[in-house]
Amino acid sequence: MSPIRLRKSHKCYGGTTAFWSHDSVETQTPMNFATFVPAGELRHGILWLSGLTCTEENFMAKAGAQRILAEQRTMVLVPDTSPRGLHLRGEHESYDFGSGAGFYLDATVKDYSQHYRMYSYILKEIYPLFRDHFGIHTVSIMGHSMGGHGALVFGLRNPHLFQKITTFAPIVNPSQVPWGTKALSGYLGDPSTWHAYDACELLKSGHRHPEPIVIYQGTKDEYLDSQLKVDRFAHAADTYGQKYELRLCEGYDHSYYFIQTFFGEALAFT
Amino acid sequence: MSPIRLRKSHKCYGGTTAFWSHDSVETQTPMNFATFVPAGELRHGILWLSGLTCTEENFMAKAGAQRILAEQRTMVLVPDTSPRGLHLRGEHESYDFGSGAGFYLDATVKDYSQHYRMYSYILKEIYPLFRDHFGIHTVSIMGHSMGGHGALVFGLRNPHLFQKITTFAPIVNPSQVPWGTKALSGYLGDPSTWHAYDACELLKSGHRHPEPIVIYQGTKDEYLDSQLKVDRFAHAADTYGQKYELRLCEGYDHSYYFIQTFFGEALAFT
Repeated sequence: MSPIRLRKSHKCYGGTTAFWSHDSVETQTPMNFATFVPAGELRHGILWLSGLTCTEENFMAKAGAQRILAEQRTMVLVPDTSPRGLHLRGEHESYDFGSGAGFYLDATVKDYSQHYRMYSYILKEIYPLFRDHFGIHTVSIMGHSMGGHGALVFGLRNPHLFQKITTFAPIVNPSQVPWGTKALSGYLGDPSTWHAYDACELLKSGHRHPEPIVIYQGTKDEYLDSQLKVDRFAHAADTYGQKYELRLCEGYDHSYYFIQTFFGEALAFT
Repeated sequence: MSPIRLRKSHKCYGGTTAFWSHDSVETQTPMNFATFVPAGELRHGILWLSGLTCTEENFMAKAGAQRILAEQRTMVLVPDTSPRGLHLRGEHESYDFGSGAGFYLDATVKDYSQHYRMYSYILKEIYPLFRDHFGIHTVSIMGHSMGGHGALVFGLRNPHLFQKITTFAPIVNPSQVPWGTKALSGYLGDPSTWHAYDACELLKSGHRHPEPIVIYQGTKDEYLDSQLKVDRFAHAADTYGQKYELRLCEGYDHSYYFIQTFFGEALAFT
């Protein structure tokens, strides 16, 4: 475990919003992450995974989460969504691949396979920070959009590590939608390997989480029909016996204005 | 009054965060502003003025204000901080002048005098929107840093228009600090005209607000000693008989993490 370096911190609701860096073994790059740690004794930890184009900062600045986290004595840890500082072929050409979209997987396609190891990075280098650095022993996972995909995949493949899975507007079936097929083909190539990073496929192959998976989904989300397709998750969960709660939010879109509205309610369930 | 055009909107806490444009007579440019309007009957309006480098978006995205505004049935209107789309001499060269820093004044220096008329723009074209477009008849003014300067100047010069003045880390004495002297000399030239845009000078020349002026100030604000100098406001207010409440916030800095922590408390006083 490499040491973590504090880059900057801001007092917020009596606690501390902080931005950190460390050197990752998995990505072979420096990596950034953010935390909010309330004052006083901590009760719980949240691993928050962000969406396309985000860094570790978006959630900290835009979710209005610190007030609620402080009230609940819950810390949050937010990793960046891709390795930075690289110049791989095609890495910086589109918002939905490469530096805009790590997709929380371990790439196997040449060049990317050396650095785009966000799945292993988060499990082996981020998750342990809760216990080793912050003294937190119960962790839930949450995420938005591509990060909702990540939360479902990490949670279903590692149910012993995450007490609850709660997502906002997740990509539930990436192997069947444009954002997902672009990422999975670019990072993994052979479609026969994609199922390990597809929540609907994981349910089909027997993965379960013991707690109901909570999904907040805005009904006016501009990506609902084309990229998110939450009904496919509901169908797979019904078919294969995964408990879930789908909370449709009438009139809400895909933005952090939606997330900030429901984050407090969502946290109360974790 | 030119018509206002809705650019985009997001449902948030049951209300609507919206981004608008209109054509300004004062700046002779299109101008942008943002609003949050809670659901249900409105009680009150807040005019929020933002700081250096901000647009109308920063407060909407980062202040976590919508939850509190919805609870208080209070709308907020946030203008942009400078005209956009111009190419005046020196306008885009520094963060603290021109497009980064309109300073809420009516420029008299050549070229800028045609467009940088933020004082008149806000009084004549933004303020009337509360009544004419949103049906709001009581308005308070709030602002941060350069916007705190704006709130003090608008409020002291127009006490009949604003029920309360509440500021976060305001620039209170711009004619005596680097940000201010750069802006005032660049926009106004002759120092004998600066007093109209300096809160301490306005107090000295007899301007008052009937309600206590509230100032939130972080004690670890990185600009406190060099640019903000809140003690000068306290001294002028004590000397010339303006009621005020200075709320020193131990350990807080100049960021929106500070603002989001105290916005709810501040709004309760408006």
